[in-house]
Amino acid sequence: MEKTVIRQLVRDIKRYADKEVEISGWIRNNRDQKSFGFINLNDGTHFNTIQIVYERDLLSNYDEVARFRVGAAVTVRGIVVETPEAKQPFEIKAKEVNLEGDSPENYPIQPKRHTREFLREVAHLRPRTNLFSAVFRVRSLASYATHKFFNEKGFVYVHSPIITASDAEGAGEMFRITTLDPKNPPVTEEKEVDFKEDFFGKKTNLTVSGQLEAESFALAFRDVYTFGPTFRAENSNTARHAAEFWMIEPEIAFADLEDDMRLAEEMVKYLINYLLENAKEEMDFFNQFVDKGLKERLENIVKSEFVKITYTEAIEKLKQSGEKFEYPVDWGSDLQTEHERYLTEKIYKKPVFVTDYPKDIKAFYMRLNDDGKTVAAMDLLVPGVGELIGGSQREDRVELLEKRMEEMDIDKEELWWYLDLRKYGGVKHAGFGLGFERFIMYVTGVSNIRDVIPFPRTVNYCEF
Amino acid sequence: MEKTVIRQLVRDIKRYADKEVEISGWIRNNRDQKSFGFINLNDGTHFNTIQIVYERDLLSNYDEVARFRVGAAVTVRGIVVETPEAKQPFEIKAKEVNLEGDSPENYPIQPKRHTREFLREVAHLRPRTNLFSAVFRVRSLASYATHKFFNEKGFVYVHSPIITASDAEGAGEMFRITTLDPKNPPVTEEKEVDFKEDFFGKKTNLTVSGQLEAESFALAFRDVYTFGPTFRAENSNTARHAAEFWMIEPEIAFADLEDDMRLAEEMVKYLINYLLENAKEEMDFFNQFVDKGLKERLENIVKSEFVKITYTEAIEKLKQSGEKFEYPVDWGSDLQTEHERYLTEKIYKKPVFVTDYPKDIKAFYMRLNDDGKTVAAMDLLVPGVGELIGGSQREDRVELLEKRMEEMDIDKEELWWYLDLRKYGGVKHAGFGLGFERFIMYVTGVSNIRDVIPFPRTVNYCEF
Repeated sequence: MEKTVIRQLVRDIKRYADKEVEISGWIRNNRDQKSFGFINLNDGTHFNTIQIVYERDLLSNYDEVARFRVGAAVTVRGIVVETPEAKQPFEIKAKEVNLEGDSPENYPIQPKRHTREFLREVAHLRPRTNLFSAVFRVRSLASYATHKFFNEKGFVYVHSPIITASDAEGAGEMFRITTLDPKNPPVTEEKEVDFKEDFFGKKTNLTVSGQLEAESFALAFRDVYTFGPTFRAENSNTARHAAEFWMIEPEIAFADLEDDMRLAEEMVKYLINYLLENAKEEMDFFNQFVDKGLKERLENIVKSEFVKITYTEAIEKLKQSGEKFEYPVDWGSDLQTEHERYLTEKIYKKPVFVTDYPKDIKAFYMRLNDDGKTVAAMDLLVPGVGELIGGSQREDRVELLEKRMEEMDIDKEELWWYLDLRKYGGVKHAGFGLGFERFIMYVTGVSNIRDVIPFPRTVNYCEF
Repeated sequence: MEKTVIRQLVRDIKRYADKEVEISGWIRNNRDQKSFGFINLNDGTHFNTIQIVYERDLLSNYDEVARFRVGAAVTVRGIVVETPEAKQPFEIKAKEVNLEGDSPENYPIQPKRHTREFLREVAHLRPRTNLFSAVFRVRSLASYATHKFFNEKGFVYVHSPIITASDAEGAGEMFRITTLDPKNPPVTEEKEVDFKEDFFGKKTNLTVSGQLEAESFALAFRDVYTFGPTFRAENSNTARHAAEFWMIEPEIAFADLEDDMRLAEEMVKYLINYLLENAKEEMDFFNQFVDKGLKERLENIVKSEFVKITYTEAIEKLKQSGEKFEYPVDWGSDLQTEHERYLTEKIYKKPVFVTDYPKDIKAFYMRLNDDGKTVAAMDLLVPGVGELIGGSQREDRVELLEKRMEEMDIDKEELWWYLDLRKYGGVKHAGFGLGFERFIMYVTGVSNIRDVIPFPRTVNYCEF
């Protein structure tokens, strides 16, 4: 008799066929047919349940087993029987079924359709449903694929800091971190809050990006990436915004915008391929129950060559389209999601890099093009989502960077070290950011960011 | 002519021998000998530099190249020449050397010994030194090995939340996160700060552990782990404390303390093996320049079977030892680092699991043993460091858990969902936490936590 898990059985059924095994897991369904019964068991190691067949003649505690409820944990000993004629490739004929942990009748996760809103209220239990089991395993596999991709290419993974004294990262509103007494903070002679008395001796925030620190490592290791939590204190209560989310930010030296786009395209294709190969059951589930056509769309993306157009060309294409947009299409204004989706879904029908945006709608660190008006930026737009990735070649000319910081009122003294990177062996370099949750939404078809984060944090919501 | 990187050259020298290549990197040293010169080039992809030989007869810009300073970035075209009789296996005979980014004379990282204190002040440049290049590549490889280890075992990686409304995680003082006006926060009728007006509608903190949330996922996926940043607002200005650090926290269901220790031992050995195999140059460097005997110690650990003793046995051994300790050895008091190191370095001379600690010195969630006095906890002690891992079997009996929470004044209503996990298909489960920085210190011999974190955050220190 061998203790094992369902993943092993499924992977190596020939080795286990006709053998006795011990499996522990949770009951997803239990149907008593008087002289025999069926339990659908899930042990968390594999998306699908396996079927346990139990018979009155073989179990001394048959009546007890027949009453085991959904959600209860059991340990089963039995023989693995191949069932080539049935839907599932094998089942287990039980010799013993014992209760490990009971589940009362009021167990919230019953074998019926629950709304996603309800399931958010029981986020501690929702990974036990098919949908969230699939989402969070895909999230885990996509994380692994990310690390694997960069490791194979020799990138160094950098744990960029979460707590920062900078508020110049330029990507949105920030959360303050403090240990001061909220009611009676220490004050200076000028009656201002005295942040010198705070834990770090200054005002500190939660990071909105690890990019600037990643640049410093790229200028030592050449190819690096960060993958960690980032934060926005934006008062946006939408299906696409969370206050806490994970970002992947590669940064590459001796590289320009073309290299950056090549890396982004390669990464997106690698991650999708990895999931299609390593999360088959989960991707089939999404394709069937969440977003019909998902797999075909993803398979097409892997095969297609991404389009590259400039922002100026994109504006022309949109104007020529004759389409009525809610927001006007004007050179100098940022593209709205409706514009982005029109470009990628209607005009090109595949992923599109839009490059060379007007400098005034982009961050201070992006490299100024020779036209003096645009910067070497790129956004990757994909069908169904719009912007998936944003990146740029970084301004490596210290005078131009300083000028831009002055124009945009960025504190040069605070970022002395960032300027140093241009003074000491500075080279052309580039990078991008991929919002990990947005990617998970894209590859699963799940449309609310709250449903792809284990315990989401949004405006006025911080439960569990 | 092929563009490549030093890592590729080193790995596949036979393919490149006698071929022309293009390499970009940073100058670590430049020695002009009038008619020829040598540049030691590092491009960040490999620990060691490679030697570029340049000759006056071959370079039109010889005099310029001869003046290139340490830290400057250059692109070299040249022929790869194997040098079997020399220290380095090959060198590059330059046909062209061009400047990519200059480095002025005041470049802080010169080819001489810098103190670690000085290098912390230029943390944005220190990855360009041998020591920090080695530390941060090892950190990256150890992260990858962690993900690889758990992925191979089918564990699901959980991104547990960083922002939490809980202050019951029980592992130390917390940082508050807020968007309230620090000077004039909104107040309630009772003149208290009105956290209902804060971003999340309640008081929120930075997490000290992802364990409780990981437990919820373990009871769905069976085997899970977290690997992310955690925080302590402790006013400890020591070489071992940081306010922000990364933790690895696996959590396994249908598992007891024995399974937990087996997993911990397997993981530690796996990670060390991975580094000995995949970071050879770096580990040799640490062994030679940071901590002589490091490699032998690590190799011994991989080969040894870890010892298991109970806390009660450990106390007896310490008392019998006759050693004079600074802190008294008494059943009921926690072991101090001096006791831990004595056990692992003097008595057993290998890693030691100490189990079954008095319940009063351990957290509320640890499973009470049948003696009613101790809990199913384990600490892994290793030579040179002391405690590396702390873990336990979790209390899965809801009545005992509630009783313990009451005794320890933990808010049961706040943790309603944690109690739920015992009510609905609850099973025995266990887990542990490994402080990632402590592990990196252990495997590199670097003794200050500030030197194993890219940009460390400590009391009164939050630069970059």
